[in-house]
Amino acid sequence: MKDIITLAHGSGGKLTHNLISELFHKYFSNDLLLESGDAAVFDIDKGRMAFTTDSYVITPIFFKGGNIGKLAVCGTVNDLAVSGAKPLYLSCGFILEEGFPVKELEEIVKSMAETALEAGVAIVTGDTKVVQKGGADRLFINTSGVGVIADGISYSPSKIQEGDKIIISGTMGDHGTAILLEREKFQVQSSIQSDCAPLSGMIDAVLKKFGSAVRVMRDPTRGGVATTLNELVKDRSIGIRISEDELPVKDEVKGICEMLGLEPLYMANEGKILLAVDSEVCEEILKIMKEHPYGRDAAVIGEAVKDYPGKVFMHTLTGGNRIIDMLVGDQLPRIC
Amino acid sequence: MKDIITLAHGSGGKLTHNLISELFHKYFSNDLLLESGDAAVFDIDKGRMAFTTDSYVITPIFFKGGNIGKLAVCGTVNDLAVSGAKPLYLSCGFILEEGFPVKELEEIVKSMAETALEAGVAIVTGDTKVVQKGGADRLFINTSGVGVIADGISYSPSKIQEGDKIIISGTMGDHGTAILLEREKFQVQSSIQSDCAPLSGMIDAVLKKFGSAVRVMRDPTRGGVATTLNELVKDRSIGIRISEDELPVKDEVKGICEMLGLEPLYMANEGKILLAVDSEVCEEILKIMKEHPYGRDAAVIGEAVKDYPGKVFMHTLTGGNRIIDMLVGDQLPRIC
Repeated sequence: MKDIITLAHGSGGKLTHNLISELFHKYFSNDLLLESGDAAVFDIDKGRMAFTTDSYVITPIFFKGGNIGKLAVCGTVNDLAVSGAKPLYLSCGFILEEGFPVKELEEIVKSMAETALEAGVAIVTGDTKVVQKGGADRLFINTSGVGVIADGISYSPSKIQEGDKIIISGTMGDHGTAILLEREKFQVQSSIQSDCAPLSGMIDAVLKKFGSAVRVMRDPTRGGVATTLNELVKDRSIGIRISEDELPVKDEVKGICEMLGLEPLYMANEGKILLAVDSEVCEEILKIMKEHPYGRDAAVIGEAVKDYPGKVFMHTLTGGNRIIDMLVGDQLPRIC
Repeated sequence: MKDIITLAHGSGGKLTHNLISELFHKYFSNDLLLESGDAAVFDIDKGRMAFTTDSYVITPIFFKGGNIGKLAVCGTVNDLAVSGAKPLYLSCGFILEEGFPVKELEEIVKSMAETALEAGVAIVTGDTKVVQKGGADRLFINTSGVGVIADGISYSPSKIQEGDKIIISGTMGDHGTAILLEREKFQVQSSIQSDCAPLSGMIDAVLKKFGSAVRVMRDPTRGGVATTLNELVKDRSIGIRISEDELPVKDEVKGICEMLGLEPLYMANEGKILLAVDSEVCEEILKIMKEHPYGRDAAVIGEAVKDYPGKVFMHTLTGGNRIIDMLVGDQLPRIC
């Protein structure tokens, strides 16, 4: 195989076929992919299905804690999992800039395969396009995914009731801060890395025991926890109150955000979930999450309340209440 | 809404939500999309499902006969349909360059909605990313899709038998030639337009009556008819012989290809299918296709033969036989 991607790798001809057989089939090896013509074909039981898509344009494409490929698998797996689905199959579409090093592509594909294995999904169909030098910034990836939802499971923000507890599965803003540090090359020694992780295992552990006590789950990616919480209550008769002193934030993340005037509540996460749950079993759910490697820092950060319907507000450290709006503008472009 | 796309439209915050509600929901309106959180959820019967993905990076994004949005819906609908599936749901991921005119985006979204309606599919989940000026060439779209395959239907190149007829649903190379003319601004007056069309209706009409006589279907997009035919016989004990004098090509396309030293057999199509069918009902299948607006120029172009196993060869106008290989290199980058 050549060392760099050429336009001919996107032609649909011989070099495309070589790339598929020598790279994609090598790492994504599974029967469905190997058989697939224009589409992957698989059996499915009667039931409910979840279907989702995300394109990834993050820069830089390699960062502490992951790369664009790992992120692309985690993101779509997590979108399915927070919908209550067991993620099954992913598609993968690459848009490559001419001249992209095959070695880097291989590293990305390899980590996609490893992450898919961990998440229990198979990458079964794909597509590769190449654009001329300057036509795209290195590499973009789209992953779409399908999963099945067990009988009786149905999560929706409309199920949130007064008194429900809001849980986050760990510290806020790790991903956004890690990417910021990669990009800006501050003279800061830091151990912060992206939290990028497939959460289907942890979610499954919660749902198995307390599926009926969960009202809704979301992954607070772009726009951060603040934006996701706002999405949950927008146009509803209920609001959410969070407590500033309960918000789990790593000291390093806090320090960097303070230095730069950023707010961890708006920083992107790629390995966290927010749950609204029945307060009666909240502690038990928290315990299950804390036992999981991706949920060790899980915490209750607030609850659903009748005050401020449709709004999110925060009880601050100084004792006041502050409205927390959705992200306006863009704190950090190309964060995922 | 602002006139141009800004980075903040891709932030996941307020402007992203505005774009979704004011543009995407306006045109793609359906219950699943409106309800969708992180994934669209729908009921499905027990059976077989097809799942496919394609990213579209065509330039220019508007061309005679369509635009990148129409193309993105047609391409994924057709990939599902040639797999024998009834296309049901599509996802749609936009990667936009900062500064992209909202007016043009609206035109693209509108034609996606129209094409989806014609094809009988719903766009149920989506994603929008924005990259800085120069980070992408205007607009890329990924569409993924799912469809269901009726009981007993199974198409595969391995089912092709000696004597089977090869049908094409119309003239070759219209899409590739139209894009070439748009791009190169030759001083040529031409009426050639892209054949970009959703073929699920025509395919359904064929399968309803002669589903069991069809061995395999493919849409000859990138790499053209030559590459697709090669994919059908690669590593098999059978070959395909096509006849040069049977190949349907518009005179204008032929003229332009001759002038530029290009070969319509390798030019991309976006509204054509190739079928291998039982010779006994070939004429009846052809009749059904010709009755359909997208199959008026359907023709038998060859047959499966035992000579040259694994190869495609062409009986030329001058009486010889010529091996037709897959496309090598890239005839025309960013054709889809």
